Amino acid sequence: MNSIGEFDLIQRYFKRPHHSQNPEVVLGIGDDCALLSCGAKNANEALDKTLAISTDMLVEGRHFLANADPQLLGHKCLAVNLSDLAAMGAKPIGFTLAIAMPEVRSHWLEEFSKGLFELADQYGCTLIGGDTTAGPLTISITVFGKVNRQTALRRDCAQVGDDIWVSHELGDARLALGGLRHEWALTDEQLALVAPRMHAPTPRIELGQNLLGLAHAAIDVSDGLLGDLSHILKMSGVSAEIHIDDLPASSTLAAQSLELKRLCTLNGGDDYELCFTASPQQREAIEAIGEKLHLRLTKIGTITSASSELISLRDRDDRVLPQELSQQYLKSFDHFK
Amino acid sequence: MNSIGEFDLIQRYFKRPHHSQNPEVVLGIGDDCALLSCGAKNANEALDKTLAISTDMLVEGRHFLANADPQLLGHKCLAVNLSDLAAMGAKPIGFTLAIAMPEVRSHWLEEFSKGLFELADQYGCTLIGGDTTAGPLTISITVFGKVNRQTALRRDCAQVGDDIWVSHELGDARLALGGLRHEWALTDEQLALVAPRMHAPTPRIELGQNLLGLAHAAIDVSDGLLGDLSHILKMSGVSAEIHIDDLPASSTLAAQSLELKRLCTLNGGDDYELCFTASPQQREAIEAIGEKLHLRLTKIGTITSASSELISLRDRDDRVLPQELSQQYLKSFDHFK
Repeated sequence: MNSIGEFDLIQRYFKRPHHSQNPEVVLGIGDDCALLSCGAKNANEALDKTLAISTDMLVEGRHFLANADPQLLGHKCLAVNLSDLAAMGAKPIGFTLAIAMPEVRSHWLEEFSKGLFELADQYGCTLIGGDTTAGPLTISITVFGKVNRQTALRRDCAQVGDDIWVSHELGDARLALGGLRHEWALTDEQLALVAPRMHAPTPRIELGQNLLGLAHAAIDVSDGLLGDLSHILKMSGVSAEIHIDDLPASSTLAAQSLELKRLCTLNGGDDYELCFTASPQQREAIEAIGEKLHLRLTKIGTITSASSELISLRDRDDRVLPQELSQQYLKSFDHFK
Repeated sequence: MNSIGEFDLIQRYFKRPHHSQNPEVVLGIGDDCALLSCGAKNANEALDKTLAISTDMLVEGRHFLANADPQLLGHKCLAVNLSDLAAMGAKPIGFTLAIAMPEVRSHWLEEFSKGLFELADQYGCTLIGGDTTAGPLTISITVFGKVNRQTALRRDCAQVGDDIWVSHELGDARLALGGLRHEWALTDEQLALVAPRMHAPTPRIELGQNLLGLAHAAIDVSDGLLGDLSHILKMSGVSAEIHIDDLPASSTLAAQSLELKRLCTLNGGDDYELCFTASPQQREAIEAIGEKLHLRLTKIGTITSASSELISLRDRDDRVLPQELSQQYLKSFDHFK
């Protein structure tokens, strides 16, 4: 396997930064969603109302196991896309579904569509089109939401002095995956507690919409907190300091070794929580949102400077971590590494 | 392999005809594209300007060979999606690309993106987002165009008495495929003449936009003329009569046996021409479009009644084909059959 990563891949072969684009393209490659307006003739005429658009592809053996429960899989395939809408503060409207499968399995399709539509109905998200074909099991969903172009949560608007927040808890999906893979030992009870976080993530749609006008920048945590936060830093041109032992974890994960807890919360991936930045003046407002949504929101660090795009890690005693340990944590999950 | 077909699959497991949908969904599953408006609060407020959206998935070994030229493949993947926009009369704006590949192959990616962007640039269609992952080579594109909701070409508006037209020529892609598969013998020269029609189809974008306000119904011919025409008939609740020996074919295909010519033009698939219906009063206007675009447009039949959704086939002597032969032709290509 070549060492080139997924992000480099898009940058190298598919990103064309200086290429002219249509005035309808309000925001192109590089954020959780693209923003498209309907039929503007020029940039000035472009409407405030835009469609937020995101696409994801899930492959058997890579994103889910061959024996994955089809109902949970239907949920997860849509959830990971809705999570991108959440990170823009967009309200779901609809989605397209393209699916390749080796053969038509009625029971599998019934269960898959059940899980898919249960989540779709919860957020009023209509299936508007699709494609089915024979092939290795692969599911690609493109999701559409509506959001005002002026208030959409983006990756490139973090400001020096911002608090950095994360929703709910991190690391359980990775803890469950490692348990299933026997990377570490979990009791059946522990696995039962954390496995739903891996199989049936909850997109933070309501949180995203409540953060409109409050948060400066946001991203959903899909590849691991540090890797995803680094996208905010890079696109905003800022640095961050993270208190790694303040990262919210379930009691199951908190009961593991400090080292395992750190690895799962910092780099676990598959969390589908929101990481966002906001002015310290908004702390009360943000805490009120957490109470309203019954959702844990934790301040985990600070945006520190407008230069270096680096993440500085501090431990429970507020000490900066040794360089070597810090570098070890700062490796993000990458689909081609 | 189960005998259930692709169309049944969508109908059975994913179509929910009586399910309430968002007011932004102007047109859902069942046409070449869905139509989505940006952020309307109710149906009355929905804007005339809509996004036409279509998605397609291409799988190695199914839609293209393992050794397919990556530049041609890049062209084809986008072309088949643009063809769906053409069939709605929509003007391309942008597209998303999700791609699974077993490993990162630099040369392949360079060539693929070259073919992809050459076609994208031709129609001013911007890549707005994407996803890359490891997996069996699978490419899924979702394409976006703009079209007025009132004039968009749909499948459900064919009217009794309409002429049925088809653009350029049919059957060459199937002729080439059969030649490569040794289903029939082609000389190297013949193969060289027809292979580009299989590898590098031309989406009829300009034609689609010129037909706005003229044509009543349209579809792109991807699965074979008879199968695709039957979608227009079913959704419009009408029947049709086709003069099968009037179907436009290249000189290479016309030089084959009558039987082979009929099979390729009627059921070949992969043509990506437009089949459309229009009032006989529009004949001159349509012929003028053909001259303007330097594109052959051929009247191939008539919409005959508003009841039975059947296709009646007539030969070169205007005789109705025997029932058995007719049934043989009326089998459409289906990805799961």
